[in-house]
Amino acid sequence: MRQIKIGFLTISDRASRGEYADLSGKAMCKWVQTAVLSEYTSIVKIIPDEQALIEKTLLDMVKSNYNLILTSGGTGPTLRDVTPEATTNVCDKIYYGFAEEMRRYSLKSVPTAILSRQIAGSKDNSLIINLPGKPEAIAVCLSAVFLAVPKCLELLDDSKLGIDREFIKSEQLKC
Amino acid sequence: MRQIKIGFLTISDRASRGEYADLSGKAMCKWVQTAVLSEYTSIVKIIPDEQALIEKTLLDMVKSNYNLILTSGGTGPTLRDVTPEATTNVCDKIYYGFAEEMRRYSLKSVPTAILSRQIAGSKDNSLIINLPGKPEAIAVCLSAVFLAVPKCLELLDDSKLGIDREFIKSEQLKC
Amino acid sequence: MRQIKIGFLTISDRASRGEYADLSGKAMCKWVQTAVLSEYTSIVKIIPDEQALIEKTLLDMVKSNYNLILTSGGTGPTLRDVTPEATTNVCDKIYYGFAEEMRRYSLKSVPTAILSRQIAGSKDNSLIINLPGKPEAIAVCLSAVFLAVPKCLELLDDSKLGIDREFIKSEQLKC
Repeated sequence: MRQIKIGFLTISDRASRGEYADLSGKAMCKWVQTAVLSEYTSIVKIIPDEQALIEKTLLDMVKSNYNLILTSGGTGPTLRDVTPEATTNVCDKIYYGFAEEMRRYSLKSVPTAILSRQIAGSKDNSLIINLPGKPEAIAVCLSAVFLAVPKCLELLDDSKLGIDREFIKSEQLKC
Repeated sequence: MRQIKIGFLTISDRASRGEYADLSGKAMCKWVQTAVLSEYTSIVKIIPDEQALIEKTLLDMVKSNYNLILTSGGTGPTLRDVTPEATTNVCDKIYYGFAEEMRRYSLKSVPTAILSRQIAGSKDNSLIINLPGKPEAIAVCLSAVFLAVPKCLELLDDSKLGIDREFIKSEQLKC
Repeated sequence: MRQIKIGFLTISDRASRGEYADLSGKAMCKWVQTAVLSEYTSIVKIIPDEQALIEKTLLDMVKSNYNLILTSGGTGPTLRDVTPEATTNVCDKIYYGFAEEMRRYSLKSVPTAILSRQIAGSKDNSLIINLPGKPEAIAVCLSAVFLAVPKCLELLDDSKLGIDREFIKSEQLKC
């Protein structure tokens, strides 16, 4: 059985210049480490908010057969926030349900989550999910959608991703 | 008063080849039979997951003045799932609220409903609603949105569709 | 500190011809007067459902540095309903969360709110929010999203909009 590959992509001008630590990348990795029971290999990248570079990096990960690609950052209203645009350009199919559920869960505690433009979609056999940049919001968004990730990977190329459903449900209850 | 016309379109490679019975078509027809109080004429078609053929079939139904066109199947993440793309190409206007509510109701029991890309929209005087392929999910999705269907048909061409609101509300409570 | 500017744009063939009073414009102005604590200057316009004219009027308001532009009307299924199309053409970024939340709140009492195609987005430093035409629905939709408006204006150009959070939360409870 092929091993699952998960890519973590932090998109942040300041983190990529080393102006602060990549806390959102760490938050994604840590949550996934607990939620995923299958063995997986992973890669962690930090890049600035440049649309062409984001698209290239996502496409490279897709070509390298990453099953799941999680991005953090670049989903807000400012000029430099271009992650959803890059993700839309890369993907064959967009799953609006992911964005809806991530916002719905986030809105339980943070009214400004309505501004998040994060999306999810697939390109070839990879599922790409945008997450917000704030570490505390990352766990909320992952909890909101992760129960559906294994089924999506299975439909894409019959990959089997084992997850800890009890952990995810307990995380959902915290939201 | 013109009689209401309802089109049922099952989109499935295997059902169209006769490899299994069209259970989703039956599920749509049966639910609508109970929910709709007006007399109506209907047509039932089963076609494979071919985007050009789906678009042609939808447009034929629109030109034949079908007020409501329900499709089942082809809304998931795989390469052969192209029903939302075909529906988007055919429609003048998309109503995102239908997709949101169908997913929201489905998610109460099925976390993977987040993957459904089903949409709804109108072309000329026809309202087109995508439904999932699974018969048990069809009733959930119809319950989620059907209370709004008469108003939409009325706004489109002043058609009057009588529905059993108590039945629909009781179906909603089951979700 | 720059003063906040708020534009109110009623989009209605009949109101623009003077066939009835602009009740939706009044409803928007009155709600905002209560919810906004900062001083602001405002403009009120009434125009017919003409897409090119809507786009031109929105762009004029954007160029005149209106921080927040609220439209009412033209969000339904009929041929003359083109407000979301005009808004999409004008905006750089669309915030789907606004539409989701406005529909979610409206659906608590009105099943046909599912038909509303209203959206929100930003162009340059202006946030544009579509509202429905019915005065009673306007308060519901503004309550659903207004807590997030100050953060959006701040992210766009560091504008500071003071709002009465207690009033908005009490309005939300009425929905």
